[in-house]
Amino acid sequence: MEPDREITLACPVPFAEGQKIQLAHGGGGRLMHRLLDDVILPALRKDQLAELHDCALVPTPATTRLAFTTDSYVVRPLFFPGGDIGTLAVNGTVNDLAMGGARPVWLSAGFILEEGLPWEILRRVCQSLRQAADAAGVSIVTGDTKVVERGKGDGIFINTSGIGVVEHGLPLGPRQVRPGDAILLSGDVGRHGIALMAVREGIRLETALESDCAPLAQPVRRLVDADVPIHCLRDLTRGGLASALVEIAEASALAIQVHEDRIPVHDTVRAVCEILGLDALHVANEGRFVAFVPSEHAERALEILHGDPLGTDARQIGNVEAGEPGRVTLRSSFGTTRILDMLSGEQLPRIC
Amino acid sequence: MEPDREITLACPVPFAEGQKIQLAHGGGGRLMHRLLDDVILPALRKDQLAELHDCALVPTPATTRLAFTTDSYVVRPLFFPGGDIGTLAVNGTVNDLAMGGARPVWLSAGFILEEGLPWEILRRVCQSLRQAADAAGVSIVTGDTKVVERGKGDGIFINTSGIGVVEHGLPLGPRQVRPGDAILLSGDVGRHGIALMAVREGIRLETALESDCAPLAQPVRRLVDADVPIHCLRDLTRGGLASALVEIAEASALAIQVHEDRIPVHDTVRAVCEILGLDALHVANEGRFVAFVPSEHAERALEILHGDPLGTDARQIGNVEAGEPGRVTLRSSFGTTRILDMLSGEQLPRIC
Repeated sequence: MEPDREITLACPVPFAEGQKIQLAHGGGGRLMHRLLDDVILPALRKDQLAELHDCALVPTPATTRLAFTTDSYVVRPLFFPGGDIGTLAVNGTVNDLAMGGARPVWLSAGFILEEGLPWEILRRVCQSLRQAADAAGVSIVTGDTKVVERGKGDGIFINTSGIGVVEHGLPLGPRQVRPGDAILLSGDVGRHGIALMAVREGIRLETALESDCAPLAQPVRRLVDADVPIHCLRDLTRGGLASALVEIAEASALAIQVHEDRIPVHDTVRAVCEILGLDALHVANEGRFVAFVPSEHAERALEILHGDPLGTDARQIGNVEAGEPGRVTLRSSFGTTRILDMLSGEQLPRIC
Repeated sequence: MEPDREITLACPVPFAEGQKIQLAHGGGGRLMHRLLDDVILPALRKDQLAELHDCALVPTPATTRLAFTTDSYVVRPLFFPGGDIGTLAVNGTVNDLAMGGARPVWLSAGFILEEGLPWEILRRVCQSLRQAADAAGVSIVTGDTKVVERGKGDGIFINTSGIGVVEHGLPLGPRQVRPGDAILLSGDVGRHGIALMAVREGIRLETALESDCAPLAQPVRRLVDADVPIHCLRDLTRGGLASALVEIAEASALAIQVHEDRIPVHDTVRAVCEILGLDALHVANEGRFVAFVPSEHAERALEILHGDPLGTDARQIGNVEAGEPGRVTLRSSFGTTRILDMLSGEQLPRIC
């Protein structure tokens, strides 16, 4: 085995070297049924999944709009400080729904497994999926399992798709953003990417650093329930805070100014970024978001966010301006400014 | 490149050796935006996708139940006679919704791309996705793209999840099956698996054989609209007709008897099965289904199916009986019988 493969499959607790995934486990026969019965269903089982039919039937919610989203997860390593691919697969999709202002309700889970994967790894990931789903208040109601040959996959890939209900009338989106809008950031940035990178690079940290991976539906719901007239929400995943701001500036054809000293960055994140030559503003997060709100509602929105465990560090980091469309300016505490841009690619591949 | 890799990526039309997928195309930065703008969105674009936000918002349909399903597609080769991974990714998921008696409405599309994949291959697959979606009357409203390193994937994997609306009150499912029920089969079996296998094994066929890959929502809808009191529907994918019957016999705790000479098998399918030592009843299909209906409705149901292009060869192949729970008996034209069972694994891996 190559060394990085060891990391990919490294499970944080010891497990007996037992059964492994075979190609036949994806074949629709007895072996697939055994895999489902012994590993996947005991962890995920809900009434809907127990039916084992081609699709799940769910009651139509009493709202006028549904949110629908999909994400595939290919993160490496599979297990990282603060979570694993299962946690991420629930929270990432829940957060996409939350950014549409929706209350996440149902998830699907589709596995692509590589031949040779230990059952125990899959079992642990399924347990994480279930725990994260319970924590986020969503039900995993339908699923699928495929197996590919050794060397044609990478342990486990998971796709989760999600359905949420929209219980408000806000249009939400970059085109709703207006000059003067306050930009609120829910917490410190860069933890997820740096926690993973430290594992991958074998960097020993003096202070334990965990991914920020978390479900953001509740803090969003608090804002919506309090009738804060939000213009746009965006979670800070691939590309980090910088990319999110640039995307919204471009889509709204407005300018954005943010203040560097108002953007919280954990000391350890800052230190690892220096070692690796990374910019924390471009590093992926999995439990942070920005909210664009009319400036007169900023203070109240912040108070609401501070009342949520995932928003205790929330603060206003800047404003939207009627300047050059798409330009994002970062102002330092010394008064100097620099333009923030999207990166060409990604500093850290396979972060989610 | 290994030889089977050539097949996997073999595109049926010549294309200029142009840009290839890089890891950075999955990074959330400028390169990912260019891939979306140049390749994926031109093929898939719908109003919803154009918004490019974290999730799609769709109007809640005026029914009491929704169907929700997911499937990942890892088929090899990517292009095969009668379709490609894009066609399959739409029809497979549409069919899962149809088997729940639902009218498919919205799909998601999640791509896991391998570094080095030619853009042109992705472009063609996206075009197939769009064409198949148009043909099936569904909209692809949300998507996701991830990139993994060379050797950690296999060209393209696609997950599609689907939402359908249930416009009838039938409970549908193996537990609704009753002794005496007629078992209707929509057409000949084994084409999809054999068409793929012939390509993989380099078998030259005298008669062209295409996959049966097709969307089954319309023939199901005809049955539902005509108030046929269907008990159970099942499409014949991995594991083929035999596995579907055994699963339903086991889940309903009833016995099933089917007649071998009533199960249509194309001559070429039969011939290739003989060469390769396969049993057509276990071979995967992607456009065939069985319907379990009360026997007094069988004749009318068949007439309805015969009126649909995907049901012209439909026929009754047997009945449900109050015999040994889970036993499926195949009766030959000579009057001999044999027990049909699920295979342990799958004769043909990565068929869907």
